Amino acid sequence: MTTRHFRKVNKRELSVASLADDIRAGSKQALAKGITLIESVKAEDRIYANELLERLYPYTGNCIRIGITGVPGAGKSTFIESFGTMLCEQHNRVAVLAIDPSSTRNGGSILGDKTRMETLARHPSAFIRPSPTAGTLGGVHKKTRETMMLCEAAGYNILLIETVGVGQSETLVRNMVDFFLLLVLTGAGDELQGMKKGIMEIADLLLVNKSDGENVPVAKRAVREFNQLLHFLQPATPEWQTKAMAVSSLKKDGLDDVWTIIEAFVKFTKENDYFESRRNQQLTDWFTQMIHDRLVEQFFVSNTTRDTVKQLEKRILLGEVSPSNALDELFSK
Amino acid sequence: MTTRHFRKVNKRELSVASLADDIRAGSKQALAKGITLIESVKAEDRIYANELLERLYPYTGNCIRIGITGVPGAGKSTFIESFGTMLCEQHNRVAVLAIDPSSTRNGGSILGDKTRMETLARHPSAFIRPSPTAGTLGGVHKKTRETMMLCEAAGYNILLIETVGVGQSETLVRNMVDFFLLLVLTGAGDELQGMKKGIMEIADLLLVNKSDGENVPVAKRAVREFNQLLHFLQPATPEWQTKAMAVSSLKKDGLDDVWTIIEAFVKFTKENDYFESRRNQQLTDWFTQMIHDRLVEQFFVSNTTRDTVKQLEKRILLGEVSPSNALDELFSK
Repeated sequence: MTTRHFRKVNKRELSVASLADDIRAGSKQALAKGITLIESVKAEDRIYANELLERLYPYTGNCIRIGITGVPGAGKSTFIESFGTMLCEQHNRVAVLAIDPSSTRNGGSILGDKTRMETLARHPSAFIRPSPTAGTLGGVHKKTRETMMLCEAAGYNILLIETVGVGQSETLVRNMVDFFLLLVLTGAGDELQGMKKGIMEIADLLLVNKSDGENVPVAKRAVREFNQLLHFLQPATPEWQTKAMAVSSLKKDGLDDVWTIIEAFVKFTKENDYFESRRNQQLTDWFTQMIHDRLVEQFFVSNTTRDTVKQLEKRILLGEVSPSNALDELFSK
Repeated sequence: MTTRHFRKVNKRELSVASLADDIRAGSKQALAKGITLIESVKAEDRIYANELLERLYPYTGNCIRIGITGVPGAGKSTFIESFGTMLCEQHNRVAVLAIDPSSTRNGGSILGDKTRMETLARHPSAFIRPSPTAGTLGGVHKKTRETMMLCEAAGYNILLIETVGVGQSETLVRNMVDFFLLLVLTGAGDELQGMKKGIMEIADLLLVNKSDGENVPVAKRAVREFNQLLHFLQPATPEWQTKAMAVSSLKKDGLDDVWTIIEAFVKFTKENDYFESRRNQQLTDWFTQMIHDRLVEQFFVSNTTRDTVKQLEKRILLGEVSPSNALDELFSK
């Protein structure tokens, strides 16, 4: 702790330290800035991003992480708007990582989400971070987990992670959260058709949304049908029977019941230790995945390697080389 | 092509060439020997194994690959015994890669499977290769794909790949085959309960087995229930409606219908090109997976690396280091 040591600390390091403090103190501006740093693809930003994460990591985890998915039109934004506002009014601090379908990578997104979730966006206890759909997988950004950590360190006790069902995005989100919500539509009686494979079996609760007005009887029938089906499927969380229920995000009907169910779920899984063990598993799985990704990334960084792999793939499909031999050829170079 | 060149060819290489010829000529003994070579973990065998694959690769692919799964007690062996024998009697050549629950890695397995599938094992047009369950994943050996290739080169036109549902083994097998069969039990009316997540959505046909004697009405009801459910789920193969039907492996009832359905499936998917495109996708996915596995394998070959990763995992779970920083620490070494 000599003067010399202090001289070596550069401005940027100092600003990371104060950024961490500001995030911890609850500044939304600092949090937004921190997330931008985390999401940056510039190599020089990564050192600072990692330092920021390191400083904030001890303050993460004190929250309930909720994933939300549903087909387009299921009313995800309206649900998050109503549900998030209710939670804020009950003295929670709610962070929303939401998809913004209107946006591209640069620009437009914040305005888009502010329009979609107007009341929530204005609430002092809410923080909304829109993800552009471009460059992400169904709204799941490469840095979504780190973004969640920053929100947790900032004191948000409820995290809502929205995803549209592109590719494996629901499974990705399921592996980041404690509780997973599936929003479905009422409709022509065969709502179930066209639903993604296995999607019901990763959900902890099914919400038949838009159960209002003349839609109520249809929604009730859909709930019965879903419950019959869910009875036969494997639950997403051991010993937890996933159920369907009707809600109206518009009329704010049933939203308090949703929260009661989530609270019961958290209590139940904390008591049987599944809450903790799932989180630990998620963390180590994530780390393992990161190692694998880094190895693959390093390997494919060279253009020559990428070209060789493409050529080998072609030859495999033409029957000229077996995959096993193609592999040996690739690794003998 | 000088004399000098011929002198350099060693005995083992010559024997690989003749082994390939013998396999092509239909010798079961040669096929068994070839598979043993493929499965060998000895480094010096790998060169010869790869040469064998290279020689046989052009002769692979002319077959129908059928995956078969089901809970223990669903009657997989009895089904394969009856179904395989029927196919052989209809002038097919049938290769079975079967699980042998009685066996460990060394010894016992051949006797075990010969007992389980006595009639089929004695048929000259059948070849049964038992996989010990130990050292494999639900009967899926690391070299199952290569073994399939050898059987194809040997002229078997129907491949039956059995798996017990351990871990991700059904998904692994689904990605190796053209058609996937799920055997289920009739029972107390809630057969569906306890079935693995997503399993029905990777099946092209559901067979309610043991539909004989007083079991017939129960089986019929189960078929109705399954069909209702399947109607709502996503099909395993685009545009193909997976259906349930009752069979009796014991009485050989319905087995010809199973074959008719498989033939219709092959015709349908060949016409809409899905057959070919699924196979190509399976091949390139396999190659990609092999590259990833090799990278991970090479990375974790060192004890030091494995220890470092374990230490980092511990520190992550204790909240001492974030996964992102642990990753950088690991790769900066």
